[in-house]
Amino acid sequence: MSEHGPAGALGAAGAAGAAGAFFSSRWVERPEHVSELAGGLPAGFRAAGVAGGIKPSGALDVGLVVCDHPEVTSAARFTRSGVLAAPVLLTMERCRLEGLRAVVVNAGNANAATGRRGIDDAAKMQGAGAMAAGVGEGTVAVASTGVIGVPLPMDAVVRGIAGAARSLRADGDHDFADAIQTTDAFEKRASLSVTLGAGTVRLSAQAKGAGMISPRFATLLCFVQTDAELSVQTCELLLGVTVKRSFERISVDGQLSTNDTVILQASGSSGVRVEAETDDEVRFGEALDALLRQLALMIARDGEGAGRVGRVVVRGGNIDAVSAVARAVANSPLVKTALNGGDPNWGRIAQAVGMALPGTAPLALDIAIEGVPVCAGGGVVPFDRDALERAVARDEVEYEVGLPGSGAETELFFSDLGHGYVTINAEYTT
Amino acid sequence: MSEHGPAGALGAAGAAGAAGAFFSSRWVERPEHVSELAGGLPAGFRAAGVAGGIKPSGALDVGLVVCDHPEVTSAARFTRSGVLAAPVLLTMERCRLEGLRAVVVNAGNANAATGRRGIDDAAKMQGAGAMAAGVGEGTVAVASTGVIGVPLPMDAVVRGIAGAARSLRADGDHDFADAIQTTDAFEKRASLSVTLGAGTVRLSAQAKGAGMISPRFATLLCFVQTDAELSVQTCELLLGVTVKRSFERISVDGQLSTNDTVILQASGSSGVRVEAETDDEVRFGEALDALLRQLALMIARDGEGAGRVGRVVVRGGNIDAVSAVARAVANSPLVKTALNGGDPNWGRIAQAVGMALPGTAPLALDIAIEGVPVCAGGGVVPFDRDALERAVARDEVEYEVGLPGSGAETELFFSDLGHGYVTINAEYTT
Repeated sequence: MSEHGPAGALGAAGAAGAAGAFFSSRWVERPEHVSELAGGLPAGFRAAGVAGGIKPSGALDVGLVVCDHPEVTSAARFTRSGVLAAPVLLTMERCRLEGLRAVVVNAGNANAATGRRGIDDAAKMQGAGAMAAGVGEGTVAVASTGVIGVPLPMDAVVRGIAGAARSLRADGDHDFADAIQTTDAFEKRASLSVTLGAGTVRLSAQAKGAGMISPRFATLLCFVQTDAELSVQTCELLLGVTVKRSFERISVDGQLSTNDTVILQASGSSGVRVEAETDDEVRFGEALDALLRQLALMIARDGEGAGRVGRVVVRGGNIDAVSAVARAVANSPLVKTALNGGDPNWGRIAQAVGMALPGTAPLALDIAIEGVPVCAGGGVVPFDRDALERAVARDEVEYEVGLPGSGAETELFFSDLGHGYVTINAEYTT
Repeated sequence: MSEHGPAGALGAAGAAGAAGAFFSSRWVERPEHVSELAGGLPAGFRAAGVAGGIKPSGALDVGLVVCDHPEVTSAARFTRSGVLAAPVLLTMERCRLEGLRAVVVNAGNANAATGRRGIDDAAKMQGAGAMAAGVGEGTVAVASTGVIGVPLPMDAVVRGIAGAARSLRADGDHDFADAIQTTDAFEKRASLSVTLGAGTVRLSAQAKGAGMISPRFATLLCFVQTDAELSVQTCELLLGVTVKRSFERISVDGQLSTNDTVILQASGSSGVRVEAETDDEVRFGEALDALLRQLALMIARDGEGAGRVGRVVVRGGNIDAVSAVARAVANSPLVKTALNGGDPNWGRIAQAVGMALPGTAPLALDIAIEGVPVCAGGGVVPFDRDALERAVARDEVEYEVGLPGSGAETELFFSDLGHGYVTINAEYTT
């Protein structure tokens, strides 16, 4: 079966043929009980993506996901920015986040820093979404991505939502994923089959990229659906843990968006219940974890056009120091440009570590790149520079930092910094 | 008199002719009692810059400044990185920082992350500098800038110091300024005449740029000399205050160097004593302040090749919030690329503010660019976009951010982010 077979041609047998298309990073292992499907939403969900006319290009820009099962459970996570976009404020304050039936999304305008009018517009989106989905307003989450500080063109948004209502399909995830993107270079979407002890369930997700993908666009959105039956508490627990290990572990440019939104919805339509504190919960969690980590890596890779992703692993005796160092390395434009240029420039790693830990000199710092020690106890060690240059020319580069002590460890994934980033963010002045 | 007249052709009369060449920013006013001189060191100082052979290009790379007056007073400030370069560690630990007679500097190699051998090499530099200057080792500061993690080529360094000893001259500041640079696009050097109540004194400084000027080079060095007679306490006080208002107020890429060093030396050779808590202390402080602020702005402008500088002024009721916001705006690659592209993209300012102040939404945020309000109370306000686009196309762009409350204010200067930055830091892999 082709991995590009028709959406909806699903099932465990077909899924095996597509394995390997989605889980492309060496840092994410596909769990054995997870197989990739060509597409389509889990039972109980329909989605659509249409062109409402917000994007000047005429591309798809309004998306709708609806759960047809009233007993849906859900969980959500949002940006912690002090400047929250109107849809985020509205969704946090006016929705039953544990029972979201529908999600309505627009791209091309973030509805952020739009004041009172922005809240009113987000409320109108929510109302239109509720009508389109045939559900209560308090069960409709709203998300937006695009330019900050421009009022939402409500005619286009409402036209889009009405069109989406007419286009809802069980295989609408592809259009929906298109509609929530801005200028992502590639699609970030997956449909998975997950074999549990109690039966087989489906898991799907659609995401858009973060960071400097486009002028004034800086948002991460991810919507996840499953037909497993999950309690509200299990939704909360699993989404909380897996978001921490995925979207909170990536840095494109160190810039927190006003609009970041991640939502998990469980329809229960498979009839397979995932009970708390069971093997099945672990297995479902592993599937969700792999899914979100791979999506996070795709977002990092798509961050600025150039396409290399770094992973920094930091170990030491103090978790605060370990976290600060990982963040400093992942956010350093010096490290990011070296990654872009394929330069095994470990001095920039040392510089970032020093910046993160003021007042600790002299620091017994160890650094390895692609497993090759380059700095031990704070001083250079001899290494084969040619071999290392070949190793860092690959798509994924791993950096390890050792601080004094043991017991604490963290990792972060980060995009590189190349000319594409400057071109997109400096030269486009639309 | 030409502003490019021969170094050493000094005096208050000649100085007036050069006025305006150095104080080029609208954000730094030349105090009325300060005039620019064409060059040359204050009485009691000699300097040299020579090619020792550290830089492959054969450019000047070893510099020496010597105060011939044994009653010198001095003060120093260093990077607070946890990864301190060997010369910084050595100078902090083994020098009488309040009585520095000489400064020996090399460019082309930072002697950082070089372990025990690095300390030994820095000590050898100090010893050679002491011989060259004819002063005690404990009065010789050592500074280095260049590649991190490569042992210092000591033959070249010692050869350079010996050559510098033979080349020391009262007008050697020009060569010295050349020798401490890496790939700075323009010179950062000034000679000033300062009229005090007690008489006229001289003030000179030589600096090199910070940030991503060159691959693996990321250091700010600044050496300041005066023939005023200053107590050790006055040196400390004035350098402390003025560094806070200058070099601690700039961001090229938010990256703290392993090697940053600022040193002020006062020979007292003019016979003009600046007493504590007098008008003359204020006047001398104003001159030093203007000098260091202009040098800091030049470093920001030279940061990444493209040449625009932003100033963000943040006001509010809480100094921690105000400082965090200023830092977030100045370090944001989204803001920096918009500055580079001449884009009045205030949504990126709002995004940076929100990131700096998590959990404060909805925030009554005001933003003005070049005096034009674009956001009030958290929402967009109408403005003349064409006029604003013309305003942000200039060399210096001012951003004002208003947070709730009053009484706290800070400013930061920052460089833009353009293709030059990526080219230098990603494509050069020497």
